[in-house]
Amino acid sequence: MTAYAAPLADMRFVLRHLVGLDRIAALPGKGETTAELVEAVLDEAGRLAGEVIAPLNAGGDRVGATLENGVVRTAPGFREAYAQYRDGGWNALPFEAEWGGQELPWAVAMAVSEMWQSASMAFGLCPVLNQGAVEALQAHGSDEQKKTYLPKLVSGVWTGTMNLTEPQAGSDVGAVRTRAEKQADGTWRITGQKIFITYGDHDMAENIVHLVLARTPQAPAGIKGISLFLVPKLLPDADGNPGARNDLRCVSLEHKLGIHASPTCVMAYGDGGGATGFLIGQENRGIEYMFTMMNNARLTVGLQGVAIAERATQAAEAYAATRVQGKPIGLDAPAPIAAHPDVRRMLLSMRSQTEAMRALAYAAGAALDLARGHPDPIERAKAQARVDLLTPVVKGWCTDTGCEVASTGIQVHGGMGYIEETGAAQHLRDARITPIYEGTNGIQANDLVFRKVARDGGVAARVLFDEMARTQAELAGARHPAAAAIRDRLIESLAALMAATDWVVETAPEDPAAVAASAVHYLRMFGLVAGGWLMARAALTVMADGSEGGDPAFRAAKLTHARFFAEQYLPQAAGLLLPITEGWRSVTGAEED
Amino acid sequence: MTAYAAPLADMRFVLRHLVGLDRIAALPGKGETTAELVEAVLDEAGRLAGEVIAPLNAGGDRVGATLENGVVRTAPGFREAYAQYRDGGWNALPFEAEWGGQELPWAVAMAVSEMWQSASMAFGLCPVLNQGAVEALQAHGSDEQKKTYLPKLVSGVWTGTMNLTEPQAGSDVGAVRTRAEKQADGTWRITGQKIFITYGDHDMAENIVHLVLARTPQAPAGIKGISLFLVPKLLPDADGNPGARNDLRCVSLEHKLGIHASPTCVMAYGDGGGATGFLIGQENRGIEYMFTMMNNARLTVGLQGVAIAERATQAAEAYAATRVQGKPIGLDAPAPIAAHPDVRRMLLSMRSQTEAMRALAYAAGAALDLARGHPDPIERAKAQARVDLLTPVVKGWCTDTGCEVASTGIQVHGGMGYIEETGAAQHLRDARITPIYEGTNGIQANDLVFRKVARDGGVAARVLFDEMARTQAELAGARHPAAAAIRDRLIESLAALMAATDWVVETAPEDPAAVAASAVHYLRMFGLVAGGWLMARAALTVMADGSEGGDPAFRAAKLTHARFFAEQYLPQAAGLLLPITEGWRSVTGAEED
Repeated sequence: MTAYAAPLADMRFVLRHLVGLDRIAALPGKGETTAELVEAVLDEAGRLAGEVIAPLNAGGDRVGATLENGVVRTAPGFREAYAQYRDGGWNALPFEAEWGGQELPWAVAMAVSEMWQSASMAFGLCPVLNQGAVEALQAHGSDEQKKTYLPKLVSGVWTGTMNLTEPQAGSDVGAVRTRAEKQADGTWRITGQKIFITYGDHDMAENIVHLVLARTPQAPAGIKGISLFLVPKLLPDADGNPGARNDLRCVSLEHKLGIHASPTCVMAYGDGGGATGFLIGQENRGIEYMFTMMNNARLTVGLQGVAIAERATQAAEAYAATRVQGKPIGLDAPAPIAAHPDVRRMLLSMRSQTEAMRALAYAAGAALDLARGHPDPIERAKAQARVDLLTPVVKGWCTDTGCEVASTGIQVHGGMGYIEETGAAQHLRDARITPIYEGTNGIQANDLVFRKVARDGGVAARVLFDEMARTQAELAGARHPAAAAIRDRLIESLAALMAATDWVVETAPEDPAAVAASAVHYLRMFGLVAGGWLMARAALTVMADGSEGGDPAFRAAKLTHARFFAEQYLPQAAGLLLPITEGWRSVTGAEED
Repeated sequence: MTAYAAPLADMRFVLRHLVGLDRIAALPGKGETTAELVEAVLDEAGRLAGEVIAPLNAGGDRVGATLENGVVRTAPGFREAYAQYRDGGWNALPFEAEWGGQELPWAVAMAVSEMWQSASMAFGLCPVLNQGAVEALQAHGSDEQKKTYLPKLVSGVWTGTMNLTEPQAGSDVGAVRTRAEKQADGTWRITGQKIFITYGDHDMAENIVHLVLARTPQAPAGIKGISLFLVPKLLPDADGNPGARNDLRCVSLEHKLGIHASPTCVMAYGDGGGATGFLIGQENRGIEYMFTMMNNARLTVGLQGVAIAERATQAAEAYAATRVQGKPIGLDAPAPIAAHPDVRRMLLSMRSQTEAMRALAYAAGAALDLARGHPDPIERAKAQARVDLLTPVVKGWCTDTGCEVASTGIQVHGGMGYIEETGAAQHLRDARITPIYEGTNGIQANDLVFRKVARDGGVAARVLFDEMARTQAELAGARHPAAAAIRDRLIESLAALMAATDWVVETAPEDPAAVAASAVHYLRMFGLVAGGWLMARAALTVMADGSEGGDPAFRAAKLTHARFFAEQYLPQAAGLLLPITEGWRSVTGAEED
C-alpha cells in the first residue's frame, strides 16, 4: 500500500520554466490563467488525488469491477470518489466554455490529469475515454448532438466510451464488422459485438454514451467504409434526460493483468433486434473522426506512463528511506538501503526518467494550446506540427519507460516487491497495458517514422533539433562543472538522432520495411534525446539564477537528475544508432541477398 | 494457454558445438555420457516436460498452492506430475553415484533443468531448492547425515529447502535472529521464524528437510556467528524412515505476483518449545555453507530466465504465426502479424536473446563439469575461475533479460497479451521474481565487479576476453557476408568491455562506491558481449561446414539470430561504457565536489 503526494514542485517548475506557461496564459481567452489560479487548481487537485482517490487504488486492484445480473459495479469507493471529482468541476477543466468547460490550458489540464492517473490509473481511465468522446463530438457532432450530449459529458454527469475493437479488428480497425442500418426515422440500427471497451458499463454516471465504429450496408471495404455512431445506453427523452433503455449491454468483463478496477467490457449491440444509434458527421468518415478521439487520448496514455512512474518512484523512495539492510560502502553502521550506491542508482533512474517524461508530455500539451489558441495561423501550424511529432513519442516512450520504472520499483523493494500487499507489483501490472492500448507502441513508432518524420522530409523534426542545438550552445556558456558533462552527452546523442533522422528520411521511400523494422528504436532514441534536452534546459534554469526554479534542495536535486539522465541515458540513445541503421537487415531478410 | 515443446535442436547444438560436450564426456567417470544417451535423456525429458508438466502451468497459476489446517496443498496435478518426475529418476541426474545419483554432466543436467523451468517454473522450483540442500550436505554433512538424508533427497522421495530470510534479514543475512541451543543429547533446539521459504511445506514428498541458518548463544555478531542446521519435518527413526513430527510448521503463504503454484511459506520453528535440529559441519560457518547451496542455485535461477524466455518466445511465435491483422508492407493481402517488420523484430529479439542466454548458461555448466572432474588441478582451477566469473553474469543477465523477453511476449500478443487467459502475462509475472531471489541482481553485480573481476586484477575476465578475440580473428577468415557484420560489432563491444574492465580494476580499490554504482551496467554489458561472442561462434559453426550444425533451416535461422544479436545488442553493450565510467558521479555525489 503506497501513499501518493502530487509532485507539485516539479509540476510548477515544468509549467513555468520548461513549457512556457506565461506564453500560453497570454493567448486569447486564457487571460484567467493566472499563476495564482494555476497554483490553486494544482493544490486542490493534489488534495483530491492524494486524499480521496489514491487510497482506493489497492482495494480497487484487489476487488476489481464486477458484473452482476448484467450490471457493472465499480470497486468500493469509486462511485463516491467519482461524485466528488464530478461535483468539483474537475471533468470540465480543458473543455470549451460553450458546453460548460473551463478552458484552462491543456498544459495545466495535463498536470491535473497526471494526478488522477497516479492516484489510480483504473479510476483515471473513465475521464480519459470521456474526454475522447467530448473531443470527437466537439469537432464532428451536429449542433443538436452537441446540445444534447456535450454539457452532460463535459460536466461528467454522463460518460463517454470508444468502441473500436472487435475480435478480428484490433490494430487493423478496417476489419470492423459491426453493422449500422438506416431506419425510416433517420436513426440507425446497430448490431454487433465490441471487445476491450473501457468503462463500457459502470455505476458512476447517470448515462453512458458509446461512440461506435460500424459499417453501413453499401460501405466500401476496409477503413474507408467505416462510420462513427453515437449510441447512448439510455436514450435521451425530449428534455434531454435519460429515457428508454437502448438495446446494448455488457456481456462479460475481461480478467486482466492489471487495472482491475477499470471494467473492460465485451459489449453486445442489438441482441434484441438493434440498438438505436445516431450518425456522427458523414458516412464513411469514421476513421478520421476516430483519430480526433484518439490523438489526445494518446497523449493522455503517455501521461499515464509518467503518472505510474511517479507513483512507483514515490513508493520506492519511501521504502528505501526506511528499510535498513547491511552497511553501505563507507559507513560504519547499518543504514537505510537508499545509501547503497546501486539502490541510489535505481532511485535516480526512476526519478530522473519520470521528470524527463513529465517535461516532454507537458511540452506536447503546451504545443497543443498554441496550436489551438495562437492568433497567428503560422504559429498555430508550427505548434500543430510539434504536437503531431511529439504525440507518438510521448505515447511510446513514456509508456515503455513507465513500465521500466515500475519494474525497477519492484527491484528496489527486493523480495517484498514480489508480494502483492506491498503494492509495488500493482504499478507494473497496471502500467503494462499502456504500451498496448490506443495504438500499440509499434504503431506509434510507425506513425512517427512515416507520417511525422519522413512525410515532411524531416522538417518538423529538424526545427526541434535546432532548439536542442541552441540549448547546447547555452550550456557552453554556463560555468557550473555539470554543464560541460551534460553538454558533451547532448552533443553526441543529438548527432546520433540527426543521423538516424537522415537515414529515416532517405530510406523510407525506397525501403519502407527497413524503416518499419527500426522504428521502435528510433522512437526510443527520440524520446531519450528529447527528454535529455528538456532536463538540460532544467539544469540551465537552476544553474542560472538563485531566485528562480524553487528552493535550494529542489534545485540541487534537479541538477543531479539532469546530470544523471545525461550520463546514464543519452549514451544509450546514441548506442541505438547502429541498431537503427544496420540492425534492420536481419529483420527484413536483406542479409540473405 | 501456451503449449511447450523443448527446443531440442538448439539444446543439442549448444551442447555439441558451443560448450564442448565431447570434452566433458571424456572426463574420468563420464564415459557413459555418449551422444546416444544424451539424445535419449533430452528426448525423454522433453516429453515429460511438454506433455505432463507444461499443461499444469496455467492451472497452477490460477489455483495456486493453498494452506488448509496447517497443511500446504499443491495445485491440481502437481503431486502426480512430481511422482512421475521422481519415479523417472530425473531428480538424481547430476548427483554423485554414491548416493544414487547418475553423475551426468552438469551441462546436460542444465538442459534438462531448463525444460522443467520452461514447463512450469513454479513446479521446477521444488527440485532447485532440493538440489541446493543436496550440494550442501554432500560438501559439509557428516557421514551419518549423508547416509540418512542424501539417498532420499537425491531420489526426490524427500525434498530440501533453504531457510535464510527473516523479516529483518534479507540481503543482509548476517542479521538472522533464529536461535539454536545445544541439548544434552547433542541435538539443537531451534526457535525462530523464517520467511520466503520456497516449498517450505507441500504434499509432493514423504518428508521435507529444512536447512536453516541460525545463531548459537555465544556466537559472534553478524555473518561470522551464523551456523547451518538440518531440521527435518519428520524426524527419521532408527531405520531412517520418517518418524515423529518435528516442532515446525508453515503459518502462512505469501500472496505473490507470480509463481502462484510454488508455496512461499512463513515457517515457524519451535512454537511448541523448540524444533530438533542437527548441526551441519562446524559452528559459525553457516554462511560459507550457504554459498555452497546458493552458488549452483544462482546458475539455475539464471537458467530460469532462459527457460521463461523460451516459453514466452514459443507462445509469441505461435500467436504471431496465426493472428491475421492488416497488410504488411509489400504484401497485397492480410497476413499473419509475424510478417510485419516490427513484429518480426520483436520475435527475433526474443529468439536471439534466448539462444544467447542458453549458450552462456550451458557454458557455465560445462565449466562446472571441468572444475569438478578434470584430472589436471590447473585445468580444474581455470575452470573454477570461469564458473565463478560467469555465475553472477548468468544469474543477473539471464534473469533481467528473461523479464524483458516475457514483456515483449505480451507486446506481440497486443491487447490479448493483457488478458490473463492468453497466458502471456503469466510468464512476466513468474519471471519477475528471478532478478530478486538467490541474491538480487544488484548483489550479483557487486559480486561480479569486486570478487570476480577486481580481486584477481581482471585476470579471469581477460582469459575469457582472449577467447573472444580469437573468435574475432576466425570471423575475419570467414567469407560469408554476415561474418564481417558480426565481427565489426564484436570488436567494438569487446573493446568497450575491456575498457570497462580496466576501469573496474583500477577504480575498485580507491573508490568502491563508484564501482558499486556502475556494477549493474557492467554486468549487463558483460552478459551482452559474452552472449554475442557465443552467438558469433554459433555463426562460425553454421557457416563453416554443411554437414555440421543441424539442418539447413536451423542453420539459416541461427545465422540470422547471430547477426541480429550482433547488430541489435552489441552496440547497446558498447553504449553502456560511458554510463559505467562517467555515470557514477551523480550517484555517489562526486559531482558536488
